[in-house]
Amino acid sequence: MKISTHIAKFTKPLYLESGRILEPWQIIYETYGELNEDKSNVILITHALSGSHHAAGFYEGDRKPGWWDALIGDGKAIDTTKYFVIATNVIGSCFGSTGPMSPIYPGSNERYRLKFPVITIKDMVKAQKILLDSLGIKNLLAVVGGSMGGMQALRLAVDYPGFAKYVIPIATTYQTKPYVIAINKAMMEAVRADSEFKNGNYDPDIIKEKGLKGLAAARMIGYLNYISPATFEKKFGREYVKTDGMFELFGRFQVESYLEYNGANFPKWFDPLSYIYLLKAISLFDISRGFNSLDDAFSQIKDNLYLISFSGDTLFFPQEMRDIKKYMDKVGGKCQYYEIDSDYGHDSFLVEVDKFDFLISDILKGELDARF
Amino acid sequence: MKISTHIAKFTKPLYLESGRILEPWQIIYETYGELNEDKSNVILITHALSGSHHAAGFYEGDRKPGWWDALIGDGKAIDTTKYFVIATNVIGSCFGSTGPMSPIYPGSNERYRLKFPVITIKDMVKAQKILLDSLGIKNLLAVVGGSMGGMQALRLAVDYPGFAKYVIPIATTYQTKPYVIAINKAMMEAVRADSEFKNGNYDPDIIKEKGLKGLAAARMIGYLNYISPATFEKKFGREYVKTDGMFELFGRFQVESYLEYNGANFPKWFDPLSYIYLLKAISLFDISRGFNSLDDAFSQIKDNLYLISFSGDTLFFPQEMRDIKKYMDKVGGKCQYYEIDSDYGHDSFLVEVDKFDFLISDILKGELDARF
Repeated sequence: MKISTHIAKFTKPLYLESGRILEPWQIIYETYGELNEDKSNVILITHALSGSHHAAGFYEGDRKPGWWDALIGDGKAIDTTKYFVIATNVIGSCFGSTGPMSPIYPGSNERYRLKFPVITIKDMVKAQKILLDSLGIKNLLAVVGGSMGGMQALRLAVDYPGFAKYVIPIATTYQTKPYVIAINKAMMEAVRADSEFKNGNYDPDIIKEKGLKGLAAARMIGYLNYISPATFEKKFGREYVKTDGMFELFGRFQVESYLEYNGANFPKWFDPLSYIYLLKAISLFDISRGFNSLDDAFSQIKDNLYLISFSGDTLFFPQEMRDIKKYMDKVGGKCQYYEIDSDYGHDSFLVEVDKFDFLISDILKGELDARF
Repeated sequence: MKISTHIAKFTKPLYLESGRILEPWQIIYETYGELNEDKSNVILITHALSGSHHAAGFYEGDRKPGWWDALIGDGKAIDTTKYFVIATNVIGSCFGSTGPMSPIYPGSNERYRLKFPVITIKDMVKAQKILLDSLGIKNLLAVVGGSMGGMQALRLAVDYPGFAKYVIPIATTYQTKPYVIAINKAMMEAVRADSEFKNGNYDPDIIKEKGLKGLAAARMIGYLNYISPATFEKKFGREYVKTDGMFELFGRFQVESYLEYNGANFPKWFDPLSYIYLLKAISLFDISRGFNSLDDAFSQIKDNLYLISFSGDTLFFPQEMRDIKKYMDKVGGKCQYYEIDSDYGHDSFLVEVDKFDFLISDILKGELDARF
């Protein structure tokens, strides 16, 4: 599989939903496979909160591949011998696309930080569309993404009707519910409670080296809904760390040690301000914003919409995706809904790829179209 | 209803499960109603994480009554014209019983802080039992408590078989599951992430005045499971605070404003170290500790065990209380299980008293005993 990483730089302003402008701006992206002659084999991959443009394959020296490597590759469901796959890093994130830690203007030592504009899912998709236009890509075979990536897929279907043939939102929602807004809030406040965050004026190098306890705690809060209570039970039970005292105040159950480890590592590879900005984007997500109603929004969709949810998802509940199906049926759109039986939890879309990859493979081959 | 508040001081050492000793120690408690002549009308109320001995009635000048006022009072389900009700503040808490902010020895300016011993549910119950002994109370008509209070009720039934006639644990578990341990961990780490916590060496007066962002964030995490996703939806929807900008980074949805308000207030009335110690006690709770098996633990229970759970509880799931019923049936104990149909969430035991108070009233009158 051929992997290429690129940065596309744009000098034309990016007009954001907030009324603010990003100018200049850039987007980092990765491609897998080869673009065919008529540019009809393009699949866009959209990532989740902590994801990046590195969706598949190995970087030299890395032990771990990209985050959706189980799905994307030669001979895999998203077969890179047939398809040309593009994965971008969303604006607002911290892996090379324009975000809160970018310089305010080229060459400046001053970073945006809290002056960075609030980014929405709509803005992320708009930036991706401009990138695709610049590459001369007039149509997508498919857009596929889970969680925040699923929001982008859905947004793309509504904002650019007919642009993608297949739209595949996974483990996501059409409108972030107050429960998830509350989770996001608790995470934001955990970061802000840490005085080392310095109200956004931290030194990123120091954070990467020394960590940031508030961001670590935020990451722990995230895990509470990434896996289900049943998975917590199966993975950890009530095992205690062997070398910790049961009656030491900070002695740890295995589950606590797991959270500590993942929490402490997170600030080494993810930026606190990007985290807050992306949480805000998720909280703001509502497919009906800009329309009179949800019906109006869903009636925009001309693409074939394939929804995949997981029965044990405790972050974006299957009911929310069943609701999308209902709206689509109501407005006469083309939509199929698949609910994967699993008690793993929200992260199923990342770790249980074998439970739904065959579906994606069939969708991309057009084998499920007959069901419309 | 007659309310009296007392502090009982003990000079005899309290031997803790950890092997540590508290000496001297004290317990603050409140009573409602009148003790009858043969001391046969005593009901012990056990409180949850942030609860106190002030379970019912109004203090002079207060707008809000005690936390279970809907249940306890003249003519109410726990009828103070008939019963003598005792509510204690658990050791480790911060309302007057010995806790981490108590002086290390009488008259000392030095507080325990992190030198305070880890307290378990068993220790809390032991302290209550010593108090009751000191009052010459040889038997309880009932012990009633929700959440952490339910753990105490269950523990009392196991550790002091035959002491209570009716044991009524509500919205609780027999063994804290790793999901809840994980929630507790995230809360602890949010507190510790705040440098104003000063690793436990904070000035309590300053915290009360200025708050503690880490503890506020922890309280927000708590709310994520005190009410259910459905209740978040009903209470808040996606309403935005009128005067906040949609595209301001810290502009707030109503649900965020609600969490902020309750989070910010919490440190004014609850101590951060007590919070951590009580979370630890909850995480450590396992009714089988000290026994060979859960069967062994449950076979100790000689009292009439009445379990009440709520279908929409997402902290201590009804399945956990159904499991208690199974164990009790297996070992031939006297146990009845009631599941209240409600999607409100864990806090049902506090705010939906009208859905189960008639049950408690009937239990106390002995009217449900015939079902054994």
